[in-house]
Amino acid sequence: MNTNRITQLFNIKYPVVQGGMIWCSGWELASAVSNAGGLGIIGSGSMYPDILEQHIVKCKAATNKPFAVNLPLIYPQVADHIDLIIRYQVPIVFSSAGNPKTWTEKFKQHGITVVHVVSSAKFALKSQEAGVDAVVAEGFEAGGHNGREETTTMVLIPMVANAVQIPVIAAGGIGSGKAMAAAFALGAEGVQVGSRFVASVESSAHINFKKKVVEAGEGQTLLTLKELTPVRLLQNKFYDQVMDAYRQGASKEQLIALLGKGRSKKGMFEGDLDDGELEIGQVSAAIHDIRPAADILLDIMLEFNHATQHIGAIQFPT
Amino acid sequence: MNTNRITQLFNIKYPVVQGGMIWCSGWELASAVSNAGGLGIIGSGSMYPDILEQHIVKCKAATNKPFAVNLPLIYPQVADHIDLIIRYQVPIVFSSAGNPKTWTEKFKQHGITVVHVVSSAKFALKSQEAGVDAVVAEGFEAGGHNGREETTTMVLIPMVANAVQIPVIAAGGIGSGKAMAAAFALGAEGVQVGSRFVASVESSAHINFKKKVVEAGEGQTLLTLKELTPVRLLQNKFYDQVMDAYRQGASKEQLIALLGKGRSKKGMFEGDLDDGELEIGQVSAAIHDIRPAADILLDIMLEFNHATQHIGAIQFPT
Repeated sequence: MNTNRITQLFNIKYPVVQGGMIWCSGWELASAVSNAGGLGIIGSGSMYPDILEQHIVKCKAATNKPFAVNLPLIYPQVADHIDLIIRYQVPIVFSSAGNPKTWTEKFKQHGITVVHVVSSAKFALKSQEAGVDAVVAEGFEAGGHNGREETTTMVLIPMVANAVQIPVIAAGGIGSGKAMAAAFALGAEGVQVGSRFVASVESSAHINFKKKVVEAGEGQTLLTLKELTPVRLLQNKFYDQVMDAYRQGASKEQLIALLGKGRSKKGMFEGDLDDGELEIGQVSAAIHDIRPAADILLDIMLEFNHATQHIGAIQFPT
Repeated sequence: MNTNRITQLFNIKYPVVQGGMIWCSGWELASAVSNAGGLGIIGSGSMYPDILEQHIVKCKAATNKPFAVNLPLIYPQVADHIDLIIRYQVPIVFSSAGNPKTWTEKFKQHGITVVHVVSSAKFALKSQEAGVDAVVAEGFEAGGHNGREETTTMVLIPMVANAVQIPVIAAGGIGSGKAMAAAFALGAEGVQVGSRFVASVESSAHINFKKKVVEAGEGQTLLTLKELTPVRLLQNKFYDQVMDAYRQGASKEQLIALLGKGRSKKGMFEGDLDDGELEIGQVSAAIHDIRPAADILLDIMLEFNHATQHIGAIQFPT
């Protein structure tokens, strides 16, 4: 089998989606992944409409393959973003952080494929009812903003795949072909890879942040700020300040004040490793180099093919 | 392939270990799993030495297959437990919660196979250096006491398998053959299944607790009491009291006082679903019936064989 419902849905070669991450995934990364046979995604959550427009235009110039835009539905200027997506005929939208009922019908009317990001079987089912074409099921180990129920990829994927008929794309903890094979064993038909692509040549993350991801060891990220929106952060000075605030019994208002504005841009885009917010997944502990996105994708697929063949030979007679 | 390093190490048919869980896994469950071709484990962490002795004697009478004892190394009467294990020639010990250097050599001198439970690649390496024969690598989604770094099974297993040469048994979130296949794709050569065996006929858990596990939905367990020892609990009245205590800014001492003594026995063994502590994994959300342990094991193996065959056929030409 060398095609499945995900490659067919997106018209791509490999069922690998590059996560649409704020400050890290602009047109350069998205077009590189799409040109290499995966699905590249522009992360619009950190872009004003005029910036998103530039990225869409440049991405279309850089690839004739399908690409997508990731759209957090709680984004203040979401309507402007949607106008751009429709005007420029972006073929696929990954929506997240909001109700998929609000916009899915409009996208579908314009022939746009819609995928919604969920962290529970319950919301996967709601997304299916809203008419989306597929879901991304994202586990607790993922970087950035995250579900409150803390269900991990290993537990989440089989429950979501069991709950819906539409195809499931697994996310959270997946940065290698072995993890991709594991996700397929659990019932996924595609994977979304985020952290691994942060440490790519084409990622728009600041080089300081890329190097910090490469250096990260195990246990150096933690899901925190659960009173606001749960977010997985890499340990740094700001992270330590958050931990101190908790030890001193900080209120929600004090946490909001501490977080302030613009910390994710400062950390991930401007490279301020002390005072910035560094969003990355647990799998950062297994990332050891910064490489071209096409090489990363090819390595994942080679390892995936090897892993599936390897475990395909394992049978214990019953 | 129908044998591997784990089946050879334990001299068993299937590379499936039943977790040695306090209050849930006595001789009846352990012997049932061993008789069915897996490795049954007596959980000694909730037993006084005289009780453990009874369970070992009864287990030996109920099966002529290998079985093991799980031994938390921080248990106050650990030396008495070890004397019993040696005296009754228990062939395999799974040690946890302590330093494997302290006792491994003594076990090995008596010809006992030693496996240590870890939640990081760092401690897997230390366990290998201490001379253990294999490690259980247990992810964040597992029930009961849990690692501080919160690394999930999906991320943990490849890192541990990469760090050590001894075989790795994956634990946390594994209650089905699909999850077992996923663990093998990640590099494990065996799995440890806990929660699924709590809801077995032979488990010594109170029927009220077994039924509560069957009813549990997604997101109903959470890792909590991290200031003491992190533990994954099922939501109930006691759990709500813990959450209330946190909201009121409880100190560590207040949390210790709230926890008190004997809550896990009360909940899991005596069936007090309100005031007891109910330790179970996230995968409880996917457990829907109470069945004989042998049937559970056979179902896992049938589904595993199906899953490995299924994904063995998936190749995307590069």
